Amino acid sequence: MAVGPGTLPEFFPVAGVRLGIASAGIKTPGRKDLVVLELAEDSRVAGIFTTNQFCAAPVTVARQHLSQGQPRYLVINTGNANAGTGAQGMRDALATCSALGEAAGVPAAAVLPFSTGVIGEPLPLDRLVAALPAALDNLSETHWPEAAAGIMTTDTRPKGSSRQVTVGGQRVTISGISKGAGMIRPNMATMLGFIATDARIEPGLLQTLVSELGERSFNRITIDSDTSTNDACMLIATGQSGGAEIGPDSPDLPVLREALAEVFLELAHAIVRDGEGATKFVTLDIREAASQDEALAVAYTVAHSPLVKTALYASDPNWGRILAAVGRAGVAGLDLEAIEIWLGEVCLVRNGGRADDYSEERGQAVMDQEEITIRIDLKRGAVQERVWTCDFSHDYVTINAEYRT
Amino acid sequence: MAVGPGTLPEFFPVAGVRLGIASAGIKTPGRKDLVVLELAEDSRVAGIFTTNQFCAAPVTVARQHLSQGQPRYLVINTGNANAGTGAQGMRDALATCSALGEAAGVPAAAVLPFSTGVIGEPLPLDRLVAALPAALDNLSETHWPEAAAGIMTTDTRPKGSSRQVTVGGQRVTISGISKGAGMIRPNMATMLGFIATDARIEPGLLQTLVSELGERSFNRITIDSDTSTNDACMLIATGQSGGAEIGPDSPDLPVLREALAEVFLELAHAIVRDGEGATKFVTLDIREAASQDEALAVAYTVAHSPLVKTALYASDPNWGRILAAVGRAGVAGLDLEAIEIWLGEVCLVRNGGRADDYSEERGQAVMDQEEITIRIDLKRGAVQERVWTCDFSHDYVTINAEYRT
Repeated sequence: MAVGPGTLPEFFPVAGVRLGIASAGIKTPGRKDLVVLELAEDSRVAGIFTTNQFCAAPVTVARQHLSQGQPRYLVINTGNANAGTGAQGMRDALATCSALGEAAGVPAAAVLPFSTGVIGEPLPLDRLVAALPAALDNLSETHWPEAAAGIMTTDTRPKGSSRQVTVGGQRVTISGISKGAGMIRPNMATMLGFIATDARIEPGLLQTLVSELGERSFNRITIDSDTSTNDACMLIATGQSGGAEIGPDSPDLPVLREALAEVFLELAHAIVRDGEGATKFVTLDIREAASQDEALAVAYTVAHSPLVKTALYASDPNWGRILAAVGRAGVAGLDLEAIEIWLGEVCLVRNGGRADDYSEERGQAVMDQEEITIRIDLKRGAVQERVWTCDFSHDYVTINAEYRT
Repeated sequence: MAVGPGTLPEFFPVAGVRLGIASAGIKTPGRKDLVVLELAEDSRVAGIFTTNQFCAAPVTVARQHLSQGQPRYLVINTGNANAGTGAQGMRDALATCSALGEAAGVPAAAVLPFSTGVIGEPLPLDRLVAALPAALDNLSETHWPEAAAGIMTTDTRPKGSSRQVTVGGQRVTISGISKGAGMIRPNMATMLGFIATDARIEPGLLQTLVSELGERSFNRITIDSDTSTNDACMLIATGQSGGAEIGPDSPDLPVLREALAEVFLELAHAIVRDGEGATKFVTLDIREAASQDEALAVAYTVAHSPLVKTALYASDPNWGRILAAVGRAGVAGLDLEAIEIWLGEVCLVRNGGRADDYSEERGQAVMDQEEITIRIDLKRGAVQERVWTCDFSHDYVTINAEYRT
C-alpha cells in the first residue's frame, strides 16, 4: 500500500551528472540493484549521515572520502546494507571504491559508497565488482528514473523530485531521488537521498544547505521510529549552469534555497507516502509550544504511538489515544485545560475534554480522508514544528515479519 | 493470542478483604464489569499512579482520598476509563464515591475509585450507581477469581497471584490481581494492580514497598510504549494475620518483601504474556551498563522497536534490527567492537559483527521458542536491568484497529 499517486515527476537532467544502472544480483538475480553516479570535475558534494552509533561500513568510508577530497563517483547497492559486518565490511566498502576507481581512472578516495538492504550479511563483493563495468557503460544524464528504481528496497515505488528556477539570470536545475519505507526515523538524514543541482555553490554554504534543509525535511519524518544504520543524504552542486558562485550572502540564495527546500520536502514526503503498509499520510502540526524540544517531543510521541497509528489505520477518530500520547510526552507542566487538539478543521479536545461542538460524524469525515493533519495547540509559547508520519497497518506487520524469509 | 498457560492460581483468601462483582452494563450489557473491594477497619493502603499528565478523573480522586484518610472501599469499573472527560468526569468519579459510601455507611472519602476502558466517553454514572448494591450484596472473601475477570478490558484472560509465607511465626497471606494488555508502558504503576496481604505493615513502609516493588515489576514491562491515563497499583495490608507490625527495621521484612516481590512480578509478567496479540514473552536483559539510565534506554529502545517486535513475531533471528536499535538508543560512546548480543545461550554479535560461532540454525532454534531472552552486554560497567515485553503481531493491529467499532 501507499498514499497518493506515486508517479515520478519529469526529471530535468542536471549538467555534470550522469547515472548508470546495472544488475549485480546482490540479493535478487536479475534485479537492477547497482547505481553509479558520475560527477563532473569540480563538482562539490556535501552530505549528512545517520546518527546511529552503529553506522554501516559504507557510511564510515563515505564520510572519510568526503573529507579527503574531490568526489567523482557515488556507488549505491541495494539488497545488502553492509552494516554489522565488522572489519570485513570495512574492507568490502573500501574494495568497492578501489574497483570503481580503477575502472573509471580516479583514486579510490574519489568514490563514495552507499549500501541499503538487510543488515548483518556479508556484502557479495565479487558480484558487485563484476557489475561495475556495466554500470559505467550505462552512464547517461537521463537515467534519473532508472536510478530512483535501482536504489529501492521495500519501497513500492521510486521517489523523485525535479525543479528548474532562474537564479541570477541563469536557469538552474535541481533533481533528486530518495528511497526508504521502513526503519525510518532519520536523525540527521535518511537512507538514501541524492539531490543534484548544476548551480555553483560555495562549499561551506553547500554543507549548511544540506544540513538545514535535511533538518526540516528528512529529519522530520518517521515511519516506525527506527533510525537506520545506513542513512545518508548527499547534495551535489556541479556548477555547470554557467551562473556565478552562490555564497551565504548572495542575493540569489533565497530563490535557490526555496527550490532546494521544495525538492528536499517532496522527497521526504514521498518516503512517508510509501511507508511500509501505509494507508494514510499524516501531518503532526504542533503549535504554540514553548520550545522546539517540547514541540518535537509531543510530535514524535504521537507519531510513534502504536495506538494512535492503528487508530489512523482504522480511520477511527479515537482522540483519547492522541490525548494519552500527549500526556506521556515528557513535557512538564502541560495544562490539559488549555490544550486544543484538532483533526483537520474539527476541534476534538478543548477545556480538558471533548470539544462541545465535536461529533463523531465530523471526526469521522476527516479520518476517512487519505491525508490527515493532527494539530495540537499547546498554548505555551510561539514555536511551531511539523512532523510527518503514516499509519500502522496489517501490511506493516506482514512486510516486516516476512522481510528476510 | 497470549503466551504460556493462562490459568489462575489458587487464591488464598486475605483476612479483612472481601470482593463483590456485579453487572452495570457500562459498555456491554450483561458483562460483570463492576468490582468492589471492602477492606476491614484499620487496613492500610498505599498506591502508585500513572505519570501520564492527563491522568483520569478517578486517578485524581483516588489520590486525594488516599491522602485524606482511611480507605474502606475500592470500586473499579471496566468499559469506560473516565479519562479526558473534563469537569464532568471529576463530578462522576466523586459521585461514584458518594453513592458507594452512602450505601455502605462510610464517608465518600473512604472510597477509592478506579476506571478502565475507552478514553473520552462520559461515564454512564446512573448505570454504575444502580449496580453498586448488587456488588455489595455479592461481597465474599473467595471472590478473587471473579474480581480478576471483572476488571479485564482487552485482556484475554484474568491475572492473579497468591502466596502464603511464615513471617515472625505467623502465616501471612498475599493475593493480588492485575489487568492490562494494551496501552502498557507503566510509569510508576500499571492499570490496574491490586495486591492485598493480611500482614500488619507500618504505613511508611507500605508506601516504600509498593513504590520499590512496583518499580522492579510493573514499571519494567512494556507492550506498546503507550503509558495509560489510568494506571494504578494499590497495596493493601489488613493487619489481620495476627502478627506484629512490620517496619523498615523488622527482621521479618526480608521474607515478606520477597513474597510480595514474587507476587508483583508474577502479576506484571501476566500482563506481558497477555499483551495484545502477543505470541512471545521476551526478556531484555541488559548487563554491564555504566548506569541504570543507559541500561533502561537500551532495553526500552529495543523493546519498543517495531522492527524488532515484528521479527520476534516472525521467529526471525534478525539480529541486525536489534543492533540498529541499540545504536540509536541515545547512549553516547557505545563501543560496537566490545558489545555482545545474545539470544538465549547463542551469541549473535561479537567484535562488531556476527559472532564467529553463530549460525542461523542456532539462532532459529532459540527464536522458535515461546519465551525468549535477549541479552545485551554493553561492557561499560556493572549495572544490570531487565525489562519484559512481547512481540508485535497482526492481531495487535486487528485488536487496536477494531477496539471502538
